[in-house]
Amino acid sequence: MTTRVGIVGYGNLGKGTEKAIQAAPDLELAGIFTRRNPESVHPVSNTPVYSMDDLEKFKEDIDVLILCGGSASDLPVQTPQLAKLFNVVDSFDTHARIPEHFANVDQAAKEGGKTAAISIGWDPGLFSLVRLLSESILPDGDTYTFWGKGVSQGHSDAIRGIEGVVDARQYTVPRSEALEAVRANERPQLTTRQKHTRECYVVIEEGADPDRIEQEIKTMPNYFSDYDTTVYFISQEELNRDHAKLPHGGFVLRSGATGENKHLIEFSLSQDSNPEFTSSVLTAVARAVVRMNKEGLTGAKTIFDIPASYLSWKTGEELRSTLL
Amino acid sequence: MTTRVGIVGYGNLGKGTEKAIQAAPDLELAGIFTRRNPESVHPVSNTPVYSMDDLEKFKEDIDVLILCGGSASDLPVQTPQLAKLFNVVDSFDTHARIPEHFANVDQAAKEGGKTAAISIGWDPGLFSLVRLLSESILPDGDTYTFWGKGVSQGHSDAIRGIEGVVDARQYTVPRSEALEAVRANERPQLTTRQKHTRECYVVIEEGADPDRIEQEIKTMPNYFSDYDTTVYFISQEELNRDHAKLPHGGFVLRSGATGENKHLIEFSLSQDSNPEFTSSVLTAVARAVVRMNKEGLTGAKTIFDIPASYLSWKTGEELRSTLL
Repeated sequence: MTTRVGIVGYGNLGKGTEKAIQAAPDLELAGIFTRRNPESVHPVSNTPVYSMDDLEKFKEDIDVLILCGGSASDLPVQTPQLAKLFNVVDSFDTHARIPEHFANVDQAAKEGGKTAAISIGWDPGLFSLVRLLSESILPDGDTYTFWGKGVSQGHSDAIRGIEGVVDARQYTVPRSEALEAVRANERPQLTTRQKHTRECYVVIEEGADPDRIEQEIKTMPNYFSDYDTTVYFISQEELNRDHAKLPHGGFVLRSGATGENKHLIEFSLSQDSNPEFTSSVLTAVARAVVRMNKEGLTGAKTIFDIPASYLSWKTGEELRSTLL
Repeated sequence: MTTRVGIVGYGNLGKGTEKAIQAAPDLELAGIFTRRNPESVHPVSNTPVYSMDDLEKFKEDIDVLILCGGSASDLPVQTPQLAKLFNVVDSFDTHARIPEHFANVDQAAKEGGKTAAISIGWDPGLFSLVRLLSESILPDGDTYTFWGKGVSQGHSDAIRGIEGVVDARQYTVPRSEALEAVRANERPQLTTRQKHTRECYVVIEEGADPDRIEQEIKTMPNYFSDYDTTVYFISQEELNRDHAKLPHGGFVLRSGATGENKHLIEFSLSQDSNPEFTSSVLTAVARAVVRMNKEGLTGAKTIFDIPASYLSWKTGEELRSTLL
């Protein structure tokens, strides 16, 4: 039986989700829901676009909604609201506010008898899962997360906020010497500066002062001041040509020991497109959410609560005979 | 509350499990059970050793048994037998016979109202989990598993079976050029020979013919004939000095695409001691089995069926606020 999926929001994540649903053998895209004028939205596929205001009418026609809004303002409101009516999946990634978001969504989903997976993607998401599994297996150990090389949209936006900046792309880059020390089971204590560097490609207005802008970037608290940051000034053409994609990735490592014997667990991702990879995780989890709901497992869930087999379109027998 | 764990069998895996239980903040070793004379078994810890014949008497005193016997003859009999009386975890790793073993254990565990996790470890186990997750996330892709560098005990035993061989240690080694082709998202079709090589360290009897033994190894069907195999003749002293440990590890990779964008998921392990790492996985899953049983989830389970949070001693709140 096909699972009918709705997409809420049609930005990068929504477009990636559309692609991921088309690639899935058992999922069907039931519709895209937008706050914009539906006629102004042109999906890649032949999918109808509806106004968010009409969403409630589709209560019986959609098995799960994938929420593709942002964590800053969309999801804290949208996920609890929609979890009363639909099974949902979101990618809420403001780490510090996860407990609060979980509580809100849990209450709403339970009220509606629905299942809501929150904070799904690769981090939070797959990386969280590996952090949990590896700590549980090697209690005597240290876990390290490195991000990149990849574009951080938050940092790119922060640079764009500086006066005289036209456009910017910021890459987070893990330091290979830190990665190697972890892989060598040295269990180093690493400062923020020792783990990552930041590379900024910046387009500035004619006549703007590059020295002032470089200083403003490098001393920006939270975003750059704790890092070794390199700033490259380039033209808009170069930025469009060489930095159009949104690649990302990273590494989770656990270096642990059983007595004198040392062990290393490493998980890494390399993505040409961060939004398309994230959408692919959301889409697999959408399948799991529908199944959990059918089994009466309602309320808020994270990747920690979902058996892996629920993410697959294959039966238990198939999985055991081919992948175990 | 402390979970009381029993160990069945005290070979390498049993010893590793003893260590893993001691490292766990919430587990207590209730006893070691052996088919040998209990007085001949000397555990590292201060744990009582009992005869297997007395196991049934401990029905009320043990929450879960970790079965540390072999897959060839012990577990096919032991796991279904004991799953009628106890929650159990085993490391059954004869891939081809997993469906049959699952069915036998499932029936027994359901009869007894018990929960039985089978085929737990790193492969089958963690590697299976990554194969399943990564396929579910990237349906358009290819999965690759490489083993090593590490000691294969089955291959070492096969060499020891040859006339004139006193002792042997066989290492399975992944080919770096194959790994690199996969990492480059070339999605190569790889033959057995292209994925791994085999290195054999062999001690022979005085007067035995090394040429004949080398030929017998290299042409042995299933074990060596499909591989590029290198044979080194060394002394027993050298073998004891340089090859005493049982290191292992490997790689699971999925190279996939969302349209024109390529993505790579990679998971790897490097273990100083294969039995101690495997035991650490068994021990984390023992915790999960007890919890599943309390929740009424009885029957046979694999790593595919177990939510990751069940492997941890931490609460859901702690996990969400620290690891998600």
